[in-house]
Amino acid sequence: MTTDFTATRKAFDIPAGLIYLDGNSLGPLPRAAAARVARCVTEEWGGMLITGWNRAGWMDQPARIGDRIARLIGAEPGTVVMGDTLSIKVYQALASALEMNPGRRVILSDTGNFPSDLYMADGLVRTLGNGYSLRTVAPEEVLEAIDETVAVTMITEVDYRTGRRHDMAAITEKAHAMGALAVWDLAHSAGALPVDLAGVGADFAVGCTYKYLNSGPGGPAFIYVAPRHAEAARPALSGWLGHEAPFAFDLAYRPGRGIERMRVGTPPVLQLAALEAAMDIWDGVDMADLRARSLALTDRFIAGVEAACPMLTLATPRDHAQRGSQVSFRHAEGYAIMQALIAAGVIGDFRAPDILRFGFTPLYIGLDEVDRAVGILAGIMASGSWDRPEFKTRAKVT
Amino acid sequence: MTTDFTATRKAFDIPAGLIYLDGNSLGPLPRAAAARVARCVTEEWGGMLITGWNRAGWMDQPARIGDRIARLIGAEPGTVVMGDTLSIKVYQALASALEMNPGRRVILSDTGNFPSDLYMADGLVRTLGNGYSLRTVAPEEVLEAIDETVAVTMITEVDYRTGRRHDMAAITEKAHAMGALAVWDLAHSAGALPVDLAGVGADFAVGCTYKYLNSGPGGPAFIYVAPRHAEAARPALSGWLGHEAPFAFDLAYRPGRGIERMRVGTPPVLQLAALEAAMDIWDGVDMADLRARSLALTDRFIAGVEAACPMLTLATPRDHAQRGSQVSFRHAEGYAIMQALIAAGVIGDFRAPDILRFGFTPLYIGLDEVDRAVGILAGIMASGSWDRPEFKTRAKVT
Repeated sequence: MTTDFTATRKAFDIPAGLIYLDGNSLGPLPRAAAARVARCVTEEWGGMLITGWNRAGWMDQPARIGDRIARLIGAEPGTVVMGDTLSIKVYQALASALEMNPGRRVILSDTGNFPSDLYMADGLVRTLGNGYSLRTVAPEEVLEAIDETVAVTMITEVDYRTGRRHDMAAITEKAHAMGALAVWDLAHSAGALPVDLAGVGADFAVGCTYKYLNSGPGGPAFIYVAPRHAEAARPALSGWLGHEAPFAFDLAYRPGRGIERMRVGTPPVLQLAALEAAMDIWDGVDMADLRARSLALTDRFIAGVEAACPMLTLATPRDHAQRGSQVSFRHAEGYAIMQALIAAGVIGDFRAPDILRFGFTPLYIGLDEVDRAVGILAGIMASGSWDRPEFKTRAKVT
Repeated sequence: MTTDFTATRKAFDIPAGLIYLDGNSLGPLPRAAAARVARCVTEEWGGMLITGWNRAGWMDQPARIGDRIARLIGAEPGTVVMGDTLSIKVYQALASALEMNPGRRVILSDTGNFPSDLYMADGLVRTLGNGYSLRTVAPEEVLEAIDETVAVTMITEVDYRTGRRHDMAAITEKAHAMGALAVWDLAHSAGALPVDLAGVGADFAVGCTYKYLNSGPGGPAFIYVAPRHAEAARPALSGWLGHEAPFAFDLAYRPGRGIERMRVGTPPVLQLAALEAAMDIWDGVDMADLRARSLALTDRFIAGVEAACPMLTLATPRDHAQRGSQVSFRHAEGYAIMQALIAAGVIGDFRAPDILRFGFTPLYIGLDEVDRAVGILAGIMASGSWDRPEFKTRAKVT
């Protein structure tokens, strides 16, 4: 192992005493991000004003950071660009893929996908009309459901609720064998485990950066287009910064070169500054090391909770090949149990209807924290201390 | 006049000696924004982590700030929400309006519109198929071109190049008389002059915040939906935060209540923090005062430049009713002249092919700065000092 996880842990500013197992929802603050954002606000925006677009390199940032993310997801250089939200990028990838497969009308997804992906597909299908439809099957039925009617598969590799991981290579291969294109959502993959987009031959991929990549709340998304599609893909959301010559202000749209065409509007410069600081932490990280440590963390948590809390039911696959970097347990009173855990300094989250969700992010979580979290959870379950009114009042955001 | 423009000027951190006439492109840094963003990064993201969505109020921020912008654009409370970029919001407004007028297929716009609006409409038309089209006429022909084939008008009130202002009331009235819906782009209106969306009966409106509203580079956009359409409008880009119950994680999309449905993905929390600080400056500003001062500034600049620089041709209407809050002059060597001005400490910008563009933002620009800018421009034109190679090399971002 060449990765120094003691160093990566020190790169984050996490409140003392807190065990943060929710980096799969919102990553913690990289220590360097506060200064980087402050510099962006004061020296760049404040000091350079409009000239920051050139002098501070704001305009090139989406592609420059995209290249740094490319390494983590096995993408070729020049194939990833930042911008917008994951939902918007899902729409672009789907619309683009559908247009490239004009004889077919079906988007295939699964019920384990994050709902926003399904909602965006629903909105796109509605706008397209003409018999387009979204077909949703159970996660375990995806491979079999890919037939010659499917235009595009839209699958999230790792299930946001259970942490169950799809076989990206097998699904992509089957999609291609049946004449479909494969769109992958890497929301719970990028920075969580090694991804090999080029190796599996993915057509499009999208992901967010505020989870395992630690860009902060509302950090921008990314989109990947395979090099073989770079000049054929139409962005659907064809904004001026995806134009071949944005500052010519032509009245007619002409798609920009390669991945640049997937840009839409003005990039969120302050959020990108935070992301840039977060990406520095990844420079010395080997993704195989990350995966080994992630599996050690999740194995230990599963074993510990199963031994101490028999009333919780494991929802995450035991098989390493089918597991992301999170562990989930089911319990009918999951919401209250999670609130009790949070009150005791262990932050995970709850996903309806009954999932307790724990993210294990090797950059800043160690085995000692896993053991302490297991101990606290075991205490709450043994004492029944979650069974209080204040833990049962649902917050707006769960 | 009740507005204290000395106080608003002091609320901005502008480099000493600089005359900043480019607030129509990127507003300067509000002094309070640096601390507000730093607090968001350190105390909220760093200290609250995932609980910031509830504890720091991140989730409600898009509607809360939307209400503050509503006052400036004459919108009813609860009709404006923040998110995404202007281009994305143009797409949503257009798609939604088209769906509400199903018997018609034409989007009407004009050649003075910002190209990204036209590009987004082009992308939407391509996705819709079925005979939908974008019809673009000269700005002065818009009113006449609204006929019974038009489904939606998509007009930017103030021309980004010339500062020419459309008659929003007349165009909206004609659109409605002919059975069309009116979508307004307020990019160069919001915070620049009084807008009366409710009064003119606009159907949809969109705008950005990094110009006259001073939210910083890449600040989020806003969208307005008239109350009468609130429950009929479909967002087209139907993301999870526009769902009726985002945290129920239902598989089927159900649009949220009213304007909330126009939300898409996770909001850019750091950018919204900057915007929130910027909005505080507007609390004591009367929009009629703002307009009076804006016209005084632009009148003085026009008179000064015309007197001192006969080789520059005014591109902005003299008629107050037809003018926004910027002044533009044409010159074949406009690019080089603007670079010479910037080198001399007067920041405006250039828009192809020949426009020198100057924004007059009453919150922080005064008559003395207008006079100094005129003097510097006159000196450059009289001496021909713009005619140097270093002023003719085009930057990536102009």
